[in-house]
Amino acid sequence: MPLDAIPVVVINTSESTPLIDSGLSGNAPVLLREIAELLQRLLTSDEASAIDLRALPLTPADLDWLRQALGRGQVVATLEAEGESTLNETVCPGVWWVTHHNENGAVASEFIEVTYVPELLKAHPDDVRIGLEHLELLISDLS
Amino acid sequence: MPLDAIPVVVINTSESTPLIDSGLSGNAPVLLREIAELLQRLLTSDEASAIDLRALPLTPADLDWLRQALGRGQVVATLEAEGESTLNETVCPGVWWVTHHNENGAVASEFIEVTYVPELLKAHPDDVRIGLEHLELLISDLS
Repeated sequence: MPLDAIPVVVINTSESTPLIDSGLSGNAPVLLREIAELLQRLLTSDEASAIDLRALPLTPADLDWLRQALGRGQVVATLEAEGESTLNETVCPGVWWVTHHNENGAVASEFIEVTYVPELLKAHPDDVRIGLEHLELLISDLS
Repeated sequence: MPLDAIPVVVINTSESTPLIDSGLSGNAPVLLREIAELLQRLLTSDEASAIDLRALPLTPADLDWLRQALGRGQVVATLEAEGESTLNETVCPGVWWVTHHNENGAVASEFIEVTYVPELLKAHPDDVRIGLEHLELLISDLS
């Protein structure tokens, strides 16, 4: 695990320097602190959480900064439902960047999930049950 | 989770039928029945299992047949470690086709995992802890 590879992004967030030019609002570093707290909560209380990035006052530059700060981890997953969802582990294990697309491929929502594994990657017991029934039908057709 | 911690099911295929022209040994349908039993066990006992495909007398045609019978599900995941691992959900939720490659890209091992989500996709608490430490360092460098 290349944890040492967490990119250290230095930006000036001092109040004397408005970040207008760079497009950074100063909210992204605040979010990093929030993520650290959520990771702590995951470790101590086994409690998963998610941050809705579209519900926050983040500029495109903030999102780029955050994406760079969190980096790319070892796991990349996609889920094909009505639209594609991508679930990318960041360099911080337990922090996932999750993007849901609509049927036309446009980004519908974007979350940072703080969890050992996103729920979307887990098979649901009801679906397992239905799948097993189909498998049993297939098997009985073979014999 | 280390791979050797995944319970590997050994299937007795000694009564297999001889290879016929298609290249099929007759072992693949036996394996489908085993998978159905393991799914039943997952549902009733919450017990995950794995079948080591390289440890079984399966021909390339058997593997193709099996792959086709199980189909492709909604989730596709890759994990980049020393070599790449691909973890593809099949049409049967809870049944995953997992292929581990070595550093040169060659297939090192191949499993069918019967589990809600493969352990490899879950972040390990120890790694979460180390990642959090790095994140806190990054945050303290920002202020």
